[in-house]
Formats: sequence, C-alpha cells, structure tokens
Amino acid sequence: MSENTIKRHVVGIDVSPEVTTYAVVDIQGGIQAKESFRTTDYPNVNEYVSALSEKIIMLVEQHGGYENIRSVGVSAPSGNFMTGSMENASNMPWKGRVPLAALLRDRLGLAVALGNDAHVTAVGEKAFGAARGFKNFIVITCSHGGVGSCIFLDNRPHLGADGFAGEFGHLCIIEGGRQCSCGQRGCVEEYASARGLAKTAQEILDTTGKPSVLRGVENITPQVIADACEQGDEVALETFRQTSRLLGCALATYAALVDPEAIILTGDMTSYSKWMMDELQSSFEANIFPNLKGRISLLISPLNNSERDVLGASALAWEVKEYSLFK
Amino acid sequence: MSENTIKRHVVGIDVSPEVTTYAVVDIQGGIQAKESFRTTDYPNVNEYVSALSEKIIMLVEQHGGYENIRSVGVSAPSGNFMTGSMENASNMPWKGRVPLAALLRDRLGLAVALGNDAHVTAVGEKAFGAARGFKNFIVITCSHGGVGSCIFLDNRPHLGADGFAGEFGHLCIIEGGRQCSCGQRGCVEEYASARGLAKTAQEILDTTGKPSVLRGVENITPQVIADACEQGDEVALETFRQTSRLLGCALATYAALVDPEAIILTGDMTSYSKWMMDELQSSFEANIFPNLKGRISLLISPLNNSERDVLGASALAWEVKEYSLFK
Amino acid sequence: MSENTIKRHVVGIDVSPEVTTYAVVDIQGGIQAKESFRTTDYPNVNEYVSALSEKIIMLVEQHGGYENIRSVGVSAPSGNFMTGSMENASNMPWKGRVPLAALLRDRLGLAVALGNDAHVTAVGEKAFGAARGFKNFIVITCSHGGVGSCIFLDNRPHLGADGFAGEFGHLCIIEGGRQCSCGQRGCVEEYASARGLAKTAQEILDTTGKPSVLRGVENITPQVIADACEQGDEVALETFRQTSRLLGCALATYAALVDPEAIILTGDMTSYSKWMMDELQSSFEANIFPNLKGRISLLISPLNNSERDVLGASALAWEVKEYSLFK
Amino acid sequence: MSENTIKRHVVGIDVSPEVTTYAVVDIQGGIQAKESFRTTDYPNVNEYVSALSEKIIMLVEQHGGYENIRSVGVSAPSGNFMTGSMENASNMPWKGRVPLAALLRDRLGLAVALGNDAHVTAVGEKAFGAARGFKNFIVITCSHGGVGSCIFLDNRPHLGADGFAGEFGHLCIIEGGRQCSCGQRGCVEEYASARGLAKTAQEILDTTGKPSVLRGVENITPQVIADACEQGDEVALETFRQTSRLLGCALATYAALVDPEAIILTGDMTSYSKWMMDELQSSFEANIFPNLKGRISLLISPLNNSERDVLGASALAWEVKEYSLFK
Repeated sequence: MSENTIKRHVVGIDVSPEVTTYAVVDIQGGIQAKESFRTTDYPNVNEYVSALSEKIIMLVEQHGGYENIRSVGVSAPSGNFMTGSMENASNMPWKGRVPLAALLRDRLGLAVALGNDAHVTAVGEKAFGAARGFKNFIVITCSHGGVGSCIFLDNRPHLGADGFAGEFGHLCIIEGGRQCSCGQRGCVEEYASARGLAKTAQEILDTTGKPSVLRGVENITPQVIADACEQGDEVALETFRQTSRLLGCALATYAALVDPEAIILTGDMTSYSKWMMDELQSSFEANIFPNLKGRISLLISPLNNSERDVLGASALAWEVKEYSLFK
Repeated sequence: MSENTIKRHVVGIDVSPEVTTYAVVDIQGGIQAKESFRTTDYPNVNEYVSALSEKIIMLVEQHGGYENIRSVGVSAPSGNFMTGSMENASNMPWKGRVPLAALLRDRLGLAVALGNDAHVTAVGEKAFGAARGFKNFIVITCSHGGVGSCIFLDNRPHLGADGFAGEFGHLCIIEGGRQCSCGQRGCVEEYASARGLAKTAQEILDTTGKPSVLRGVENITPQVIADACEQGDEVALETFRQTSRLLGCALATYAALVDPEAIILTGDMTSYSKWMMDELQSSFEANIFPNLKGRISLLISPLNNSERDVLGASALAWEVKEYSLFK
Repeated sequence: MSENTIKRHVVGIDVSPEVTTYAVVDIQGGIQAKESFRTTDYPNVNEYVSALSEKIIMLVEQHGGYENIRSVGVSAPSGNFMTGSMENASNMPWKGRVPLAALLRDRLGLAVALGNDAHVTAVGEKAFGAARGFKNFIVITCSHGGVGSCIFLDNRPHLGADGFAGEFGHLCIIEGGRQCSCGQRGCVEEYASARGLAKTAQEILDTTGKPSVLRGVENITPQVIADACEQGDEVALETFRQTSRLLGCALATYAALVDPEAIILTGDMTSYSKWMMDELQSSFEANIFPNLKGRISLLISPLNNSERDVLGASALAWEVKEYSLFK
Repeated sequence: MSENTIKRHVVGIDVSPEVTTYAVVDIQGGIQAKESFRTTDYPNVNEYVSALSEKIIMLVEQHGGYENIRSVGVSAPSGNFMTGSMENASNMPWKGRVPLAALLRDRLGLAVALGNDAHVTAVGEKAFGAARGFKNFIVITCSHGGVGSCIFLDNRPHLGADGFAGEFGHLCIIEGGRQCSCGQRGCVEEYASARGLAKTAQEILDTTGKPSVLRGVENITPQVIADACEQGDEVALETFRQTSRLLGCALATYAALVDPEAIILTGDMTSYSKWMMDELQSSFEANIFPNLKGRISLLISPLNNSERDVLGASALAWEVKEYSLFK
C-alpha cells in the first residue's frame, strides 16, 4: 500500500558440486554480502537445505533484514525452472529428482525460483552483462566440468516444451567420436570441457613426435596447457586451436538454426580465450551459412567469474511471484 | 569479438518543458554524472538539439568516454516510441511533429530510443523501482502538469496499435464535467493535476462557508494545500479527499478492464500521498469489480523524483539496437 | 508417428442459462453436426455433466468417431480459462465455483478448455470472423442478458493477472446511475442490455409526453422497440439513440486506454444495429482521444448468432494440450 | 463500419521454379478456385509480375470479386518475410534481391505478405494441418529440390534476428562430407534431397556387389528407388534406410537445441515415408538427448501436396495489415 512495503533485496544462491555460494543482492545488482561453504559437507539433501537456510537467514539479518527480502533465486546443476527441481544431476551426491525450490520455500517462507546453470547465467548476462540490449542471443557456458547453453528469443529465455532446450553440450560434432557419459558419441562436451582439452592434448602428444613441456605431465589441466602456451609450446597451442575449430563449427550450426544477434561465451574456460578466440572466430565464420556471415557477434562475458552465478541467481529471483509466509 | 568491445554506459535524457536533464548511467542503473539546463533557453528545436548534443559529448568525455556509450534514451512530452518523435506536445515551444530521436542520432552518431513520460517512467519502475518483479501492471504518472499512464502486460509495455495506449489522463470521470484542453469534458487530468486540485479547493471554498487558510490565497498550489492540511484545515483536507475519491474510482475502472497485479503511482504529486492514500485506497476498493477486491496492490514509487526520469530514460536506451557511426 | 494419428475434429460446447449447444467441428471450422438441449432440465451440475457427456459421445460416434476428436472447448458463463471453472455465475442454477472443465475431462477422457462468453467469442472472431487479421482488438459481447468484452493484444487474448480482464459491462458510465446487480451504480450493462433498453424506453415515456406505441406495453423487449422503430416511433428511436450515445462514449474510454485496431460488436443485440450504428459511431468519434480519431474501426461480427458460440468454443479447443485417456 | 466491409477472401500464391500456382481461398481455408502456369515462361521478373497480377485479377473477378479480397500471401524460394523480398534464390532465373511483395502490391493495390517455403508451410500446418494445437514445433520441408525448416515457439514463427533462422538443410551431418552448393560440406540437403538419394544409391551400387534393378539406370529418381523397394530391391531399401538414419540423427540434434513438442515432416519426399519412417524414428530416438526420449512426436503432414503451398500462402495473407489502394 505504501512505499515501505516494497522489498528491494533478493537472495541469490549458486549450488555447485564443490561449493555453495549465497548472497544478498539489491535491486540494482549490488552484492551486499556474499558467503560460501562446501556443498560436499552435506551428503544428505535435507541437512543441506537446513544448513543453507540457517546460513541465509543469518546473513540476511545482518544485511537489511528478512522483511526486506523479496524472493530467492537458485542456480543448480540440472535445475528445471518449470518444476523447481534438480533432475538427475550427474555430478551431485543427491540422486534423482530433488525439489530444491520447494524445500527452500518451506524453510525460508519466501518464493524461490530455480534454474540450471546456463539459464541462470543467461538471465544474469541479460540483466548485467554482455547480453544487455540484445533481444535474440545464445549464452554458452564453458566450464571445466561441462558445456551448456541457453537461448533468449525476443527478450525471453526459450526453455523448450519440457524445459530441456539448449542441450548444446550434447550436440554431436564428431560422428562416432569420443564416448560421452550421456551415452552418445562425439558430443561437444567431450572436446570443449577440461577433460576434453586434456584428451586432445594427449592425442596430439601420442600422434605427433613434437617436443612439448606437456609430455610426462600426469594431470593435464587447462591451466597447465595455458602456461605451456605462454612458453610457445606448439602442442599446447595446437590443443587450443583444435578445440576452437570444433567449437566454432558447432556454434555455426547452432547459429544457422537460431539466427541470433550474438553468442556470448561464459564460464571459467573463458579465462583461456586469449589462446582460443582467433581460431574460434575464423572457424565460426568459415562454417556459418553464407547469408549470416559477419552478422553475429561472438562476445565474452565481462562478468566476474566469482560473482556471475549469484548475480544471475539474484536476477532470476525477480522472475518469481512474490510470496511471504510471514507478511 | 572481445570483452572490451562491450559498452556498459548509456545516456538518459529527460526533456521537460522547463528543464532538460541528462546523465551518464551505468549498466546497473548507477548515475555516473548528471547535469541540466533550461529547456526554455532554446525556442528553436535545432539549436536545442545542437546545444544538448554538445553538452552530452562534454559530459561523456569526462565520465568514461564516448566509446563506452552504448546508446541514448529520451523521455519527452508526447513522445511516440514507434516513430521516435514528439507528436503535438501541447506544452512545448516546438510545434507539430518533432523527430527528436533522429535529430539526436544524427548529431551523436549513436542509437536513440524515445518515449513519452509515462512509458519511460514505467520502464524505469520495471528496471529499478516498484514494478520490478511484476509482469502485469499499470504505472500512473501524476504530476503537477498532467496525468498519464503506461500498461505493462506479460513483461512488456503495451503501447497500442498506434503508440497511444494508456490515455488515462483523458478518461472521463465526470459526465459533462470540467472543460479539458483536449476538447472533452470531465477528464481525470482536470481533477488530479495541480490545476485540478486548485479548482477543487476553490469550489469547496465557494460552495461551503467553512473557514480556511486557503481563503484569499491567490495561487493555490498543491504545496499550499498540503501545508494547510498540516494545520488541520478542513477545506484543504477535503480537497485531497475529493480528488482521491475520484482518482480511486477511475483507477477501479482501469483495473477492471486490464486486471493488473499492481498499480504504481509516480510523479511529483505523490509527495502528497500522506493526505491521499487512505481515501484513494478505500475508493478504489469500493468501486472495483467484486472478483478483483483485495487482489490489486496500489503502490507508490520508491524512486527519487529528481532521478526517476533519467533512470527510466537510461533503461529505455537499452531497448534500442546498438549502432555507432564511428565504431 | 504417422499421418493417421493426427486428430482433425474437436467438440465445441456453449453453455447458456437456457440452452446448451454442442457440435463436432472440423479443423477448418466446418460444423459437422450440432445439437442442443435445455440447460434448465439439470438443476444438479453432476447430472448435467453426465447427460452432456453421454450426448456428446453419441453425437461423436455418429460423426467421425471418438478416436478422431482432439479435444473439447467450452463457453460458459463466468468461465475462467486459468482455472477451468465457472466462478460465481450469477444467472446459473449451479452456485459458487463449478470446475466444469475437470468434470468433463473425467467423463470424456479428453482435454477440455473453458472460457467465458467474451473470451470464447473473441477466439472465434479471431479464427473465423471479423477479427481475423487484426493483432490488437477488442470484442464486445452485447446480449440480452448482459455485456462483456475481451481484449486481444499482439495476437493473444489478454485475460489479466487473475483471468478477469475486460469487465466492460461494469465500467461506470453514469456516476450514481442505475443500480447494478454487481453492487455498483451506473454500469454499462444496466444501459446496454435488454433490461437496460427497457428501462431507458420507460424513462423516456415517463419524462416526455410523446405519443408512442410503447405506451402500455407490459414487457418492452428490444424486439418490441425495434418493431416500433420500423413504424417511425420517436420514443423507440430515441431509446436506441440514447443507448448508442452512452455505449459510444464508453467505447471511446476503453479505446483510449487500449488503442486497438478495431472494436468488434457481437451478440444478439447486434440484430438492432440498424437503429444504433450511426449514433454509436458519432458518439465514439466525438468522445475519442484526438490522436485516435478516425483510426479505430467499429465492426459488427459477420458470424451467425446460432453458430458463433460453438465455433468459438471449437477454436478454443485447439488451445489446450492434447490428451486422451484411451490413446 | 458495418458487416459488409469485412473482406473474407484472400489470395495465396506459390512461386516454384517450374510452376506458379495461385488461388482464391476463403477465411476457413476453403479453396474457391485455383490455377497455375509455367514460371519458366517469364525469365524477366517484371513481365512475370505483370502476367501473374493479370491472371489473379481475372480469377478474383470470377470468384467473389476484387472488393472481397483482404490481402495476398506468397510462398517464394529464399523469401524473407521481414523484407518481402526473394534473396539470392539459387534455383530461380531472377537473380539477387527481388522485392516481389512490393512489386505485387503496386500492381494489385493490396497488402502482400511473403515468406520462404518452410515458413509458409509451417504457417499452413499451424492453421490447417498437423501443427494445429501445438505451441512449439518444427516443420521440416523435404522436397526433391532441397531441405528447409521453420521453428514455431509459443505459437509464433521464430524467424531469427535477420529472418534466416531454421537453415536445417545446411546443418552439417557428415564432417567433410559431400560438397554442397552453399560452399560447405556434409550438409543435410546433400543427403535428404532427390539428388542426395541418387548419390547415396550410386554409392551403395559402387561399393557393394549387390544385385539391383537400379544398376544401369541413368536417372535414379526417388520414385525409381521407391518402385525398386516395392520389388524388395535391397540397394533401394538400404538407400532409404541410410538416408533415414542420417536424417534421424540430424533431427535429434535439432530437437536437443529447441526441445519442441513435435516435428512435422512435409514436402514431396514424404510420399516415400513408407520406406523411411521406421528407420527415421529409431535413429531419432537413439540419438536424442536422454531427457527427451519418447517426448517428441514425429508427424507427417496430412495436407495434400498440391494444395499445401497455396493454403499456407493464404494463411500468411492474414498476417499482413489490411490495405487497399481503391478502398
């Protein structure tokens, strides 16, 4: 009824296999407070929800108060916005369908919106990042663990008839290629993730006689490869180039089906863009349908990796209808 | 192609009959710099555009640089978003159709979006104010000069087939009532604007014998009436009450046609909400269609009057496709 | 999987207080078969649903078979599309909230969509009538029993946050006017319905000394007034003129808020358009906001009154997701 | 203003490289009259437009009259709805950008909407065919000449930022596969078109020693292959199987990005569905992302090949704003 009933803070939560981060965020995307704890400390999801809820309430009381919180947004692996559940997240301890939004709503007494990593990232990029101002765009999340995507069309996320649209990580780029955990072969994710890079590096080491600082390294991580690139290591450079060529070709296929204004790359793998963007860009332009050449921007998210997920989750929190048990 | 080509500032401009305000605003709605000058100094619109453009370029160069500006948003009297023009603004020196967006685009070399006061205000309330989180809502602008409105449906402004939807100021509330400048009689604007309040106060003074500090006051402004209310002046109190009853009834009609989640009141007249909201609320609920009773929130904008318009204009700037002459 | 699993018939049902009509309609709006019975024979809603379901199954088996029916659409008084229920229909024997769509779905084993009269009529006008080709329009239903409306914006029905948008029948046109059954005064419905016309005629008879064939008529129906008009009866003519003036003014208010391309008049009262359209048109244009003058078409539905409702209901049937218990 | 100003007929035109077909179609999709002539008789586009316009006016005058025609819809190779032009249609005599909608509008004095084959087909399937009742679906056009597609999301065609979305024919299914005329390699179109089938048959003949009635056939058309299938010819059967496997895999990729309710196959190649659907269906389900298994219907259009295109074009005609030079 009056100005002071308008709530101007939300809570954003990022649930990752290793770490859970939560923050109080104001209406302009200002992070008022942010904390985190180890997800792995809670193999039981009910104990996880209890602990998370208590921590949130404590943080909220220290920063503006519960009565100032409008709603809660969650980024969760295999999160389905339509059901509010995590559905068969492969890399989490909690199996099957976990109704995380409902569990949190019951504990917190507030409306909760939940989405998967790519969806939440795209909402955040639209609100505060590289996608602001675009109506039609694709956000690609390239992280060490895997690859996902979210399509925005006419200013809205396109989640698909069942909430599963954008499965870019499982688009087949090499017919009969590497075996993927999804059961198929040749998926993008088996090439563009950390494990994909390591396999590609190993293949180059195995099939060429090139000298390389990577030879004999037990655990070839993207950072190890990038460090080798700094020293001009040809195998390391070729690893990123091959990956970029495949990714550029897959993005060209995606773009020809959707015709977006821009494709935005996010995720921790973008730290290595220095070694990838030139080749990615050429491969994309070489493979794109002729009428689209030169029309689609490839952009890297300007958002800070440590803040992107809670910022996106906070933006998602505004999408759910306000509700408060105690109002 | 790379992160640093993403432009994260816009310019917001508020063109009012008396004063023009312009600001550099960042992607989160942070006002980096704001200045203003007298609109009335420029009776010729071309001179106005030249001066405004020069001032903007100067401000921009001092705050982040031209190459960091994505686009420009303008709030202008009788502005039509579809045409980018001011169309027959009654209280401006520049007559007929003024293609202000095109004139500014030519001077600044940047994309320019233009809307009328109510549209721009609603875009701002959606981005940063009381409308954040609502999908369906009406924003009412009640200012000294007049009354307007903008409807958002399913997260988008409904501008109508010709860009003229939301003419709430000219909804007839008293059959054969006060003559309005639009040619009709009994329009909302003739009761809920500053001149409307003054007329209502005078009518009460003329038709009742009540003592009042307003008797003999030559220029009865809303502030004068509000000051009288503070002293318990019955005529002043009744002036706000009568106005509120009429406005509540008109809002009930509006709400029954549109069925919004909330109605948000903005504009300088909301400074007097202390004397209006109780009666407005009762009248609204008394007159609303029964199925809607208790379902629609009446809210007052939390945004600062001096910042609302440039903030809204900056939010509108993100709605136009990026374009730069010099890129 | 194959062509012959595509179902190309739907069932359209019109539930009116007196009569229920149901039809098998093909994908192009061709009525294959149509029957009706007295609604009033079933004061108990469960018996009504049983009887209606049996009759439908019988008709369907005679015309293409059950396995060819995709879904069912229902037009029902005070029907809410969002809930599938009739909500407090004032002129029906079944009180409170009647979940008619769910009841029929259980009996028929098919998906059922339900809307109120104005919504269903608008869907039908969009598919087969005067609204085909318009993106933004208002459909006004003027029937003997009452007045309703439905707004289409950008090709979709705008039902409002709670499904109650478009309550045009209860827009107040005369401050403190005739008492309406909704509890308010001066509603459109009290002037533009059959009972409204009769009251207006009586008022003119009572307040003027004019001779008229209507004097002494016990039950002044619209048809009686229209017949009198044919004889040049001045009171009858004035009755339609007064009604048209009020309606034109109310439509002008509606149009100024929504700015549609067209307003389409439907319902059995349109039979008397010969005596109403000239005055309605002038009043609309005289009262419309200046920028909209001459831009908005007032059209009368070309659809047959006896078919409009089942056609509209059949069009609504295509809006619900297909489902079959027995598939 | 009145019922008889509502125009209830449109003209649908299908421009194909060989034949142009045009029809007068009523509001329910009833074809009132249909005629055709050889496109190749008019190597000059202006002469083509003149002849087509004259023929249309003649047909229209014989069937309801010009004043009853609301608008015109055109299906044209490489037609872009946003510009109303054919853009670089590779198999037409008229080169570059041909503003066909504007040329026809000038001649006919009526509003003209133009789309490409896949877009128009999808609009027709939505109005009268297999897509009626779906909100999210993909229409694939498989014709002898090539392969295209159109995505509908939330009841609207998704044309993309530049009008080029849905380039399914040029999705790469075989890395480094057959050279396509678009400049890329391995495009769907090089396998699923008539020429693709012929090449596949030839490859099987060349690489296996299997006996076959196809050996020695100079011009292996799809019909020739289908006839051989009827005789149990193993090479012919394998040709359709291989094609179906590739197509099923490509559709699975498409579906994983878009998550539609259904995929609808149209075009003259669907005549051979008897030999393709089983394998296509298995390949689709084998390759689809696990969460989507069993959820997406593969359907074949029920529309008559000789009517589909003009029906679709007639449905598109209703999407353009009415305009008449002579009204």
